[in-house]
Amino acid sequence: MTRSAETAGYQFNHTMIRIKDPKRSIQFYTEVLGMELLSEAKFESFTLYFFAYDHSGGTLTDREKKNSRFNREGVLELTHNHGTESDASFAGYASGNTEPGKGFGHIAITVPDVQAACARFEALGVPFKKRLTDGSMRHIAFILDPDGYWIEIVPQRLQLADDDE
Amino acid sequence: MTRSAETAGYQFNHTMIRIKDPKRSIQFYTEVLGMELLSEAKFESFTLYFFAYDHSGGTLTDREKKNSRFNREGVLELTHNHGTESDASFAGYASGNTEPGKGFGHIAITVPDVQAACARFEALGVPFKKRLTDGSMRHIAFILDPDGYWIEIVPQRLQLADDDE
Repeated sequence: MTRSAETAGYQFNHTMIRIKDPKRSIQFYTEVLGMELLSEAKFESFTLYFFAYDHSGGTLTDREKKNSRFNREGVLELTHNHGTESDASFAGYASGNTEPGKGFGHIAITVPDVQAACARFEALGVPFKKRLTDGSMRHIAFILDPDGYWIEIVPQRLQLADDDE
Repeated sequence: MTRSAETAGYQFNHTMIRIKDPKRSIQFYTEVLGMELLSEAKFESFTLYFFAYDHSGGTLTDREKKNSRFNREGVLELTHNHGTESDASFAGYASGNTEPGKGFGHIAITVPDVQAACARFEALGVPFKKRLTDGSMRHIAFILDPDGYWIEIVPQRLQLADDDE
C-alpha cells in the first residue's frame, strides 16, 4: 500500500481512556509501568493526563517532554472526570471487552524480558487477566490497570520467523 | 517522576480495537489516514491487522516493517471476528463514549496542517463527530472510523506557550 503524499507526517499520537481516580492511575502508569507524566491539562470539570515513555536516555528537559506531547507517538491520555474518585454510586468504566460496550480491547506494552516483567508485576500485586502460564499463548500476558482496562505485555521480538504471521 | 531501571526499554506498542469489516477498515486506515498495514495474523475465528505510520522515508523493506510490529510505538491493532461483516444481526461495536460501555475515548492522529487534513477528509466523505468550526476548541476535530470510533485530529505543535497546559 503506497502512502499518500497528503498524509505525509501524520503520527498516531495517542490513545485516550477514562479513569476513575488519577491518584491510583498516575501511580500505576508511572511506578508500575514506568511511563512518564509528560503534562496535565486541568479544565473545569475534568483533567487530562498525558503519559509516554522517555526514550531519550534522560536527555530531554521537562519542557521538551511537555512539548513532545503532540509531536510523537506512543502517548497515553487519561481523562479524569472530577468527582468519580469519591462517588460511591459511580459504577466505573467499561473495559470494552464484555457486553454491553464491547469494542476497545486493550493497550499493549512491549518489554525486553517478559518473564522478568511479569514476575515484577506479581511482586507488586498487580492483578492479572492472563498469566504467561494461562491458556495457549505462553509468551504474552494481560494485566489489569486500576480501572480494569486490559494491558497486554508482549516480548520485543526483533525478528519474526519467516512462517510466523 | 524517575523511571525505574526495571522498566527500561518498555514501549507503548499498540492499541487494539475490534472492527466489523476489515475491507472497510483497511481502506480507511491506509487510504484515508495513510497508515501502512504492517502485517496480519489469521486465526481460526479471527484475524488481527497491525497498522502504523512508516516514518523511515520509505527505506524499510516489507520484512523490516513486519518485524517492527513488536518493537516500535504507534501501532494500531484491529481485530476482526470472522462473520461480523456479513451478519445482519450484528449490532456493531461500542465507541466507548456513551453508556452503556463508556470507558475508551478515542485514538488521535497528529497532522502537520489540521486545516488541510480536515478539508481532505471532507472531500473524501469521512463523517465528522466535531468539525474544526464546532464547539469552542477550534484547532482540533474528531472524525469517525468505519465502526464509529472517534479519531481526534490534532495539529503538531512544536512548542507550547509557557502558560499553555
